[in-house]
Amino acid sequence: MSQESTLANLGESESLKRTIGRLIQGKYTLVGPGDDAAVVSAPDSRYVVTTDTMIEDHDFRMDWSTGFDLGYKAIATNVSDVAAMGAKPTALVVAIALPGSTNISWLEAFADGLNAAIKELAPDAEVVGGDIASSEKVFISVTAHGDLEGRNPVLRSGAKPGDVLAVAGTLGRAAAGLALLQSDTDAKSAYDDLVAIQLRPQPPIASGIAAALAGATSMLDISDGLARDAHRIAKASGVSIEINSRDLQGFEAALEQAAMRLEVSPADWVRFGGEDHSLLATFPEGAVIPREFKPIGQVVVQTEHLVTLDGIELQQNGWDSIRG
Amino acid sequence: MSQESTLANLGESESLKRTIGRLIQGKYTLVGPGDDAAVVSAPDSRYVVTTDTMIEDHDFRMDWSTGFDLGYKAIATNVSDVAAMGAKPTALVVAIALPGSTNISWLEAFADGLNAAIKELAPDAEVVGGDIASSEKVFISVTAHGDLEGRNPVLRSGAKPGDVLAVAGTLGRAAAGLALLQSDTDAKSAYDDLVAIQLRPQPPIASGIAAALAGATSMLDISDGLARDAHRIAKASGVSIEINSRDLQGFEAALEQAAMRLEVSPADWVRFGGEDHSLLATFPEGAVIPREFKPIGQVVVQTEHLVTLDGIELQQNGWDSIRG
Repeated sequence: MSQESTLANLGESESLKRTIGRLIQGKYTLVGPGDDAAVVSAPDSRYVVTTDTMIEDHDFRMDWSTGFDLGYKAIATNVSDVAAMGAKPTALVVAIALPGSTNISWLEAFADGLNAAIKELAPDAEVVGGDIASSEKVFISVTAHGDLEGRNPVLRSGAKPGDVLAVAGTLGRAAAGLALLQSDTDAKSAYDDLVAIQLRPQPPIASGIAAALAGATSMLDISDGLARDAHRIAKASGVSIEINSRDLQGFEAALEQAAMRLEVSPADWVRFGGEDHSLLATFPEGAVIPREFKPIGQVVVQTEHLVTLDGIELQQNGWDSIRG
Repeated sequence: MSQESTLANLGESESLKRTIGRLIQGKYTLVGPGDDAAVVSAPDSRYVVTTDTMIEDHDFRMDWSTGFDLGYKAIATNVSDVAAMGAKPTALVVAIALPGSTNISWLEAFADGLNAAIKELAPDAEVVGGDIASSEKVFISVTAHGDLEGRNPVLRSGAKPGDVLAVAGTLGRAAAGLALLQSDTDAKSAYDDLVAIQLRPQPPIASGIAAALAGATSMLDISDGLARDAHRIAKASGVSIEINSRDLQGFEAALEQAAMRLEVSPADWVRFGGEDHSLLATFPEGAVIPREFKPIGQVVVQTEHLVTLDGIELQQNGWDSIRG
């Protein structure tokens, strides 16, 4: 690696120029990167906005993730929150801080990862602005925007007794991937599909809009684990949620071999593992639930326990971004 | 300080709850903090969006700035970019990472600083979302949004030969404040008004809209120094900019005593000092320039030198966020 192509050597303007030059354009952008601010179209006179941060050694490790992986994950985790409102991702801003000794090729790979995730998960969106700064540890902060296309936003607070609880996407795979990366065995190469979900999540973005159209009463993206995120819906909606363990068996079966290899329980990954960024939603009884949503339980009148599994309290174990 | 009230002890949910509970509400917010995303009103079906990051020991020092100062500065530096488009600030999201050992009272002071800046600089805006995470160094990333109220955005690229160059706000004060903080003398207490501008910038937000209404052809906020930011307008617009040193004398006079005390030149602060977040704009000849804008030069056909001071090239010295 040439000394000349470090970020410190190129400086902020040149580093930004090279990065922005690689980014694909979206159809909601009226004024793109390069000015004090971007201008974005908001067709229905409202926009949804969400932010999420990833920090080296807390949320990722530089020896596990490439620049491409981190660009991909930064987009995926944020557009997932847009989808969880029933909105379509339209525009993002990306702030990144990294050591001045980093080679520009790492940042270019990061930009390519942003592009790849946008192409796959948010086709009409664009990175309309950003910021590059220097710090000892890598720090990535993304703000994502979406358009509701005239629909009401789907909040966490609308679940009603009698609703069906359903999930779109995978459960426990990202946690399995993390456990594989942390293990000293060579199991990680045997189960690289699980590792890939941890490094480059595949949230079911289109399912968010499908759920909103089907009349979902509440929805969120499962970033901190099924148990913890089901608690959030129950608390916000003033209801209790019953999950049926038999409906989770399919998710567990997919992880059984990897779990056996690491001598752990696949059930814990499915119940408590975060970062799959699947969508958890509730639908009124009788609604035509989009086929990518798998029913896993039901909403009932609030009782002592906010979330139960086969009638037994399911603790709120899961990821806390301060405590870990 | 009680051990019990550290962020690590309270956890993410409780820390967020206590912080969000202090924030004031704005008039553009349709769904506020607490869900996967917020929903914000965009009255003219467009919004401006900008992001900026502040990193401990690069952009601030914890022994110089209080939590309140940093909350204030995080808002001020971002709404300044919104104003530089000719827009009105409407909504912000704030991501902060800090050590788990931090006491909640620091974070509460930070929230109070956010509030104070919003009240003074962006009265109808609100912090509609955010993120708290743990890291060794404090890292603050803000994304700000604004409404153009039917006006065209004022870009950097519209300056035309014949335009008048003018500045609203102060020049060199934040740089003087930084020099005072860095000095080992007790001069900092003698010039606490300059130190205050470094810690809690006072960008002339309303002047951004006034400039747009007066027909400003280009505008930006001076974050990296007059010389560097004038170059940006000249480059984006394909023009050259002539600055007259006599028009800078008033700015220098205000800094003369502090500069003498530190045995430096006030002219360097005025020409190259960043972080005042004043507005630099160009107006067509004959325009009625808002009275808070002071003319300091003129736009001419592009020549060899993009920016000159009394006809001599003015180098692009100033702050680079990667190199420092």
